[in-house]
Amino acid sequence: MRFIYNSCRLSEEKIIKTAGILTDYVNDLKEITLRKNYEAPEGSLNLPSDKVIEDEIKKVMRKMVSNKLKYIINIGIGGSYLGTRAVYDALHGAFETIENRRFPKIIFADTNDPEFLTKLTRFLSAEIVRNDEILINVISKSGGTTETMVNFEVILAALSRKFPDILNRTVVTTDEESKLYRAAQNKDCQILTMPKKVGGRYSIFSNVGMFPLAVSGVDTKKLRGGAISMRTLCLNKNPAQNPALLSACILYLHYKNGIPMNDNFFFHTELESLGKWYRQLMGESIGKNGEGITPLVSIGSNDLHSTVQLYWGGPKNKLTALISSKNYRENNTVPSRLQFPGLTADIENKSLSDIMSAIYRGVIITYKKLELPFVEIVLDTVSEKSLGEFMQFKMIEIMYLAKLLRMNAFDQPQVELYKIETKKILREKSTI
Amino acid sequence: MRFIYNSCRLSEEKIIKTAGILTDYVNDLKEITLRKNYEAPEGSLNLPSDKVIEDEIKKVMRKMVSNKLKYIINIGIGGSYLGTRAVYDALHGAFETIENRRFPKIIFADTNDPEFLTKLTRFLSAEIVRNDEILINVISKSGGTTETMVNFEVILAALSRKFPDILNRTVVTTDEESKLYRAAQNKDCQILTMPKKVGGRYSIFSNVGMFPLAVSGVDTKKLRGGAISMRTLCLNKNPAQNPALLSACILYLHYKNGIPMNDNFFFHTELESLGKWYRQLMGESIGKNGEGITPLVSIGSNDLHSTVQLYWGGPKNKLTALISSKNYRENNTVPSRLQFPGLTADIENKSLSDIMSAIYRGVIITYKKLELPFVEIVLDTVSEKSLGEFMQFKMIEIMYLAKLLRMNAFDQPQVELYKIETKKILREKSTI
Repeated sequence: MRFIYNSCRLSEEKIIKTAGILTDYVNDLKEITLRKNYEAPEGSLNLPSDKVIEDEIKKVMRKMVSNKLKYIINIGIGGSYLGTRAVYDALHGAFETIENRRFPKIIFADTNDPEFLTKLTRFLSAEIVRNDEILINVISKSGGTTETMVNFEVILAALSRKFPDILNRTVVTTDEESKLYRAAQNKDCQILTMPKKVGGRYSIFSNVGMFPLAVSGVDTKKLRGGAISMRTLCLNKNPAQNPALLSACILYLHYKNGIPMNDNFFFHTELESLGKWYRQLMGESIGKNGEGITPLVSIGSNDLHSTVQLYWGGPKNKLTALISSKNYRENNTVPSRLQFPGLTADIENKSLSDIMSAIYRGVIITYKKLELPFVEIVLDTVSEKSLGEFMQFKMIEIMYLAKLLRMNAFDQPQVELYKIETKKILREKSTI
Repeated sequence: MRFIYNSCRLSEEKIIKTAGILTDYVNDLKEITLRKNYEAPEGSLNLPSDKVIEDEIKKVMRKMVSNKLKYIINIGIGGSYLGTRAVYDALHGAFETIENRRFPKIIFADTNDPEFLTKLTRFLSAEIVRNDEILINVISKSGGTTETMVNFEVILAALSRKFPDILNRTVVTTDEESKLYRAAQNKDCQILTMPKKVGGRYSIFSNVGMFPLAVSGVDTKKLRGGAISMRTLCLNKNPAQNPALLSACILYLHYKNGIPMNDNFFFHTELESLGKWYRQLMGESIGKNGEGITPLVSIGSNDLHSTVQLYWGGPKNKLTALISSKNYRENNTVPSRLQFPGLTADIENKSLSDIMSAIYRGVIITYKKLELPFVEIVLDTVSEKSLGEFMQFKMIEIMYLAKLLRMNAFDQPQVELYKIETKKILREKSTI
């Protein structure tokens, strides 16, 4: 992964000076990685190299996963969902319709959409013949997330008619001190734990993400390997060689200059869910005390035919990160003899990656001409390794950014507001 | 569809006064609907009631569509794509994985993603047995959109090996004066036209959207019916009874008060693509001359566990539209005896719609407590009719909003910038 910032429209001096504010914090993070435990909220940094997690996952997989497995029903929301989905969609999910015979598939049950859930339970009841074709994976740190427990109970009820032993096909990932943990023990479910102090949005390299991804066929070792190498880079004291530090300073300085939005413009359709993972990471970590940067997700070339008119012709109120890859996993070529020649010039015999690269370069030139600030993140290719790199890079960037903004990167106080009201309404409905 | 604005935090007086600026324009739009033609750029208003479109579609469907049809490959980008996708996803696409035996399916080929397109051509070559199982639907107003022509040529090349007569299974939708129109005539493709002055983002009720949707099994008559009834409402001179006028004035006044963003918060996962359709409509129509409102799309309850921390705890820089429905097409109930009782209170025996409604009401109370401005759009249910209503409402709202902002709602000057650069790069690569 390369981080290019020569068009960020800030002076190197100013960036380096800002990075200086974080010298102590870089040291703190380094110390945390030496301790290898989860006592600090930044302990998530130790997840990618934690051998215990690897062993736990292997153990559960030996019991629960065979080549008969077709569907992993992943029940979780927010931080128990977005990271897993980001990686799964990038590697498999975005191609689900056209790779309809690839198994096992992950089906995500996040919110309580009545239509989706009704169709899902109907589908599973009809589709699943033997119980080893399905694995129910429930993730809730607190063990009390309304959406998650509702989906879990509805799916269990639907499947237990056909498979009375469906709890034997269930894995629960939760905090060791949660009520769900104890309940799951009494029910003979498989249990995986997550460190208490690691928040959902920093939990992708824990059992929360690694277990379902490993089961779905993702090479989690490479994913963690990417994270480990990026961690080293992003704890470098020399800001010029530390992409997370540079990125955090650039975001901070533009925000302080009055830029309220950060557009993450992915030139890969299959990375849209990765953008959504980052929306949560940024939104929950640095959106508080009346301050915060609003994250946007754009997709190239699609949004060149959509919001880009506004982003280029409207107010100059966005800092953009253009995310692309140097290589593609697969490619194809426009024929040298077209069926409809003369409609679009110079496409004959070009590979699709040549065309995407020409579009990307056209976009870069336009940002420069319009004097709009941007940085580039260039992945090697979309792979386990580069996804691990990107996610670790962004998690450390956000820790730095929160420190610069004097915010707690690990709480989310406002989210509780509607939960209290919702619970009140549900209670009223029950007592009538 | 109901539009509720009593929490928009603006005085009725101010809204009605602002609406007064548009009195002449409301009359202009009404006149345009009386003329029933496409001479004005606002002519898109006449599409839903255009019988010619209905007849053209029926004619092509009789020739091209049988119960053997499995896949419609919809090749188009931006305005030739987003509206169709919005409706398709709301009714079918969002459930594709769990309704894997429902046909015909639409597969969208929009950008030139090398991986997606390579997998797609491989899939089609393996999956399609007879040529009446596939229909290639190409949409390009100008007939020269790079992404569209590239996808078209690559897919034709891949399929023509197996099906030399694949052009007989192709429908082209384009402007009657485009080069593509003439080329398609020479090739014996089926051709559908679109009015020259109707821009892509206003074209959903033309052949651009109605043809592929009709083929996929959507009841386009109900869709157009919803639009027709909403058109009457949104051309009402009395602002208090005209939701498009009210919505435009509320957006305008908050923007003038310094609010740069408009969050469209859908409490239906399957409406995410409808949000993306609106992003283009707003972004291209009112993002110019250094001005514009940035549209955001949120999904409930998912984003309550993501960006909402920022939206509630961060800067007060968003006007929110909460979009929900009164009824659901399907529903399910949490069992009265839980497998894991005591983890989440008061969910027993509740229907999923009760739970979603409790979450929604919790959100409303929170917006009020935090004194954040919002409006509500309540659909009857997610259906052809309500989608038609919503889309027509929003297209008229944006026309009004552009008029208030003194902008041309129908051009997109900045979008050309990268196209010129991209074409230059492609030309250079060809001459080397």
